[in-house]
Amino acid sequence: MPRISPQKHGTRRDSITQAAARLFRDRGFAATGMRDVAQEVGVEAASLYNHIRSKSELLREICFRVAKTFTEHLDKLESDPYTGSLEKVEAIIRFHVRMWVEQIDEVLVTTNESRFLEEPFLSAFLQERRVYVRRFEEIIGKGIAQGQIRSLEPYVVVLTVMSAVRGIEFWHRTKKDVSAQQLEESMVLNLISGLKP
Amino acid sequence: MPRISPQKHGTRRDSITQAAARLFRDRGFAATGMRDVAQEVGVEAASLYNHIRSKSELLREICFRVAKTFTEHLDKLESDPYTGSLEKVEAIIRFHVRMWVEQIDEVLVTTNESRFLEEPFLSAFLQERRVYVRRFEEIIGKGIAQGQIRSLEPYVVVLTVMSAVRGIEFWHRTKKDVSAQQLEESMVLNLISGLKP
Repeated sequence: MPRISPQKHGTRRDSITQAAARLFRDRGFAATGMRDVAQEVGVEAASLYNHIRSKSELLREICFRVAKTFTEHLDKLESDPYTGSLEKVEAIIRFHVRMWVEQIDEVLVTTNESRFLEEPFLSAFLQERRVYVRRFEEIIGKGIAQGQIRSLEPYVVVLTVMSAVRGIEFWHRTKKDVSAQQLEESMVLNLISGLKP
Repeated sequence: MPRISPQKHGTRRDSITQAAARLFRDRGFAATGMRDVAQEVGVEAASLYNHIRSKSELLREICFRVAKTFTEHLDKLESDPYTGSLEKVEAIIRFHVRMWVEQIDEVLVTTNESRFLEEPFLSAFLQERRVYVRRFEEIIGKGIAQGQIRSLEPYVVVLTVMSAVRGIEFWHRTKKDVSAQQLEESMVLNLISGLKP
């Protein structure tokens, strides 16, 4: 599976969003001001408003971009008739691990700060997440019905996978002697082997 | 394995600590006052000070009590010569799941609010956690060396297990149709099967 496109060299708007993600992650959305974002980007606050109207808009962009990345991955996978259910689940786990390794700022903000989205965006975001979880559960359920996946509660499997990858936040802080590759292999093997029938 | 002692009927001090844990979990440590704790317990704030000096003391009591529960479980397990490494890891995973099921308030406060501990308590707490993690890693490493556990990175296994159980917070909020028993079995099976050689 290829690396996820890092989007590190995009438009001016992209670099503003990335700076905002770093700050929202470190200080929290509530404690970050547009002035902080401007400073992080290295421009005057006034010039920031040429690109972005508010910090709510930045949060929205981060959360919905992450949600879209996950949803699009699932779209492609779901419609693939040549991949078995267990392989699909492995691909999803691997994708989650990589997102947490490669886009930690954006993913952490989406996890911890999305509650600060304003309506109607908050409801739309939560709905997108619910649908994602349900589709993930359905792939597992189908695999169980076909005998390709061990008979566990699909709800618990999704919960386990989506929580386990949160630990990668600590890996970023400590790193130790474990490479991104070792992290991915150990975590994917640990989480997928239990699903084999 | 017997249920973890729920400590629901203890001393007055226990019921104050439990009320504080509920509030610290719901509102965060910073946003909770001693007056709120008094109201939750159903006493005057003044009478609360007969039992507890400050909300820092309450946070300390919650975090160190949880840490002690985990450490004591590990103490007993480590010194048991009749239990294999894989069984020890399973017992640890099961204990984590049960703590998150049965003492969710205390465990969540310990996870999310312990950063508000004052020194020297914060350092002591972090040190206790580091030692716990290292001992857990050592059990896994020993199991790998003995061929009882699949060769994965012990660091990643501990990260995976300790993060996966955090998902139980969402189970408490939604519950759905999954019982505590089903949750425990599915999560333990999912996490332990990947460790078999």
